[in-house]
Amino acid sequence: MPKLDIEAYLSERKALIDRSLERYLKQSEQRPRTIVKAMRYGVLSGGKRLRPILTLASGELFGAERKQLLLFACALELIHAYSLVHDDLPALDNDDFRRGEPATHKLFGEGIALLAGDALLTEAFQLMSRPEAVRSLKPGLVLELIYDISRAAGADGLVGGQAVDLEAEDKQADTAAVEHIHARKTGALICVCAKVGAKIGGATRQELRRVERYGGYLGLAFQIADDIMDAAGHGGEGRAGSEKKKATYPSVAGLGAARKRARELLDRCLKELDPFGKDADPLRAIARTIVERAL
Amino acid sequence: MPKLDIEAYLSERKALIDRSLERYLKQSEQRPRTIVKAMRYGVLSGGKRLRPILTLASGELFGAERKQLLLFACALELIHAYSLVHDDLPALDNDDFRRGEPATHKLFGEGIALLAGDALLTEAFQLMSRPEAVRSLKPGLVLELIYDISRAAGADGLVGGQAVDLEAEDKQADTAAVEHIHARKTGALICVCAKVGAKIGGATRQELRRVERYGGYLGLAFQIADDIMDAAGHGGEGRAGSEKKKATYPSVAGLGAARKRARELLDRCLKELDPFGKDADPLRAIARTIVERAL
Repeated sequence: MPKLDIEAYLSERKALIDRSLERYLKQSEQRPRTIVKAMRYGVLSGGKRLRPILTLASGELFGAERKQLLLFACALELIHAYSLVHDDLPALDNDDFRRGEPATHKLFGEGIALLAGDALLTEAFQLMSRPEAVRSLKPGLVLELIYDISRAAGADGLVGGQAVDLEAEDKQADTAAVEHIHARKTGALICVCAKVGAKIGGATRQELRRVERYGGYLGLAFQIADDIMDAAGHGGEGRAGSEKKKATYPSVAGLGAARKRARELLDRCLKELDPFGKDADPLRAIARTIVERAL
Repeated sequence: MPKLDIEAYLSERKALIDRSLERYLKQSEQRPRTIVKAMRYGVLSGGKRLRPILTLASGELFGAERKQLLLFACALELIHAYSLVHDDLPALDNDDFRRGEPATHKLFGEGIALLAGDALLTEAFQLMSRPEAVRSLKPGLVLELIYDISRAAGADGLVGGQAVDLEAEDKQADTAAVEHIHARKTGALICVCAKVGAKIGGATRQELRRVERYGGYLGLAFQIADDIMDAAGHGGEGRAGSEKKKATYPSVAGLGAARKRARELLDRCLKELDPFGKDADPLRAIARTIVERAL
């Protein structure tokens, strides 16, 4: 394998994901126009598509085909997008902007934004269960993936993490508490993105455990890196401008300690890929790209 | 079959559903306490369980066993409960009370209520995809049911209806527009409750179409009946006290016309059951109980 051009790799895959999302979120006659517009805005107005790219890369490492991976990759991005739309609402982070653009509720109103988030979450499960999904995968595996993803997205994972995050606001937190929140709020979904790809590719249990650990460390490192970017004023995924005071690794331990911890997690994450040799270069490059921008 | 004691029938089944929901929503170590408390409150603080009872009755008409039906029946109730928790939020209906008790956000705050709704919706899909689901049903059928339910719950159905409802607020509406909203907002989920039971029971395509029409008419009649109860001050499912002005059948056409229309829809709904003879008595009694209280 020639040396990987990670910029080209990421932009080719982002374009692929964007095209697929665009197709899946098409206006249909049955759907009210406003809700579709708000759903599309919440998904298509920006984003690096790191989560679905992770699913593709992890799947390809184990020999999965793109057409087997795309539905799930896109469903995972819809779940990520819904969580941001709801997170930005006044009831949670009260952010007026997301990636420099107005938040969904600033354009469509709080009611429609709330419903658009609900619709995106539901749409993710509709995507994964549509007849197309079982054309190239066994129904039993599809069900298992839906289960894994729902666990990562719900009270055991992402939503649970958001609830703990909300309760920790304006309270004293230590680095352990912050990591506990991040492991759920950010880590669970990133981890399942990698896991889903590996399962589709037919990874062994041992390989799966490695991929899960890779995803777990990466999820944590990602959130710390994002908070470092915000704290340093370089614009992370969007906490800057939030009116609420969140416990972050840099705010609790300082920028230096946060950078050290992110580096440590990146190293651990990369170490999990050792047995896969050069085939895992895309997963390595993705992890580096995510974390090293903040170091 | 002896004459059905509908009161006893409904209360026995409600108790069964309540016990199952209670079991599925148990606190676990992994889940933050607050989110579980809010989820449980949103589901367990009341409700007639008509939707899951409909799934049981429809399934039993076609010979399905309870253990095959219960997971889906409960998942459908979780989706109903999530929609109420979100509906009551200030961003939508801004209702302080639900069935005479404080709305979830009045007890837990708007942020946690929003997240509890998200968690309940996700939990519904987790329930339907858990390994237990395929112990008594084929994975392909389980996937098909998940697909049907996600369509009924999302932008094509319930959430889409809520969006149109929100946009119609304080605007002039006619009965056709009101029925269009209700067909989605209330009808889609009630219809899929009946459909899921019939599919699990192995209904033929023709039988399935009858059950779907039964559910469609019933859903509409149910919403009109509920709005009649509210308008007449007898307490429907909870619109009374809402600060926003919603278009309802009684508000648009008057109480008399609303009662006439509800009766007409009930008759059509019952007619669909004719070929099933006495075996369909539970489905008949459920429909009558839902609609006739308002006539």
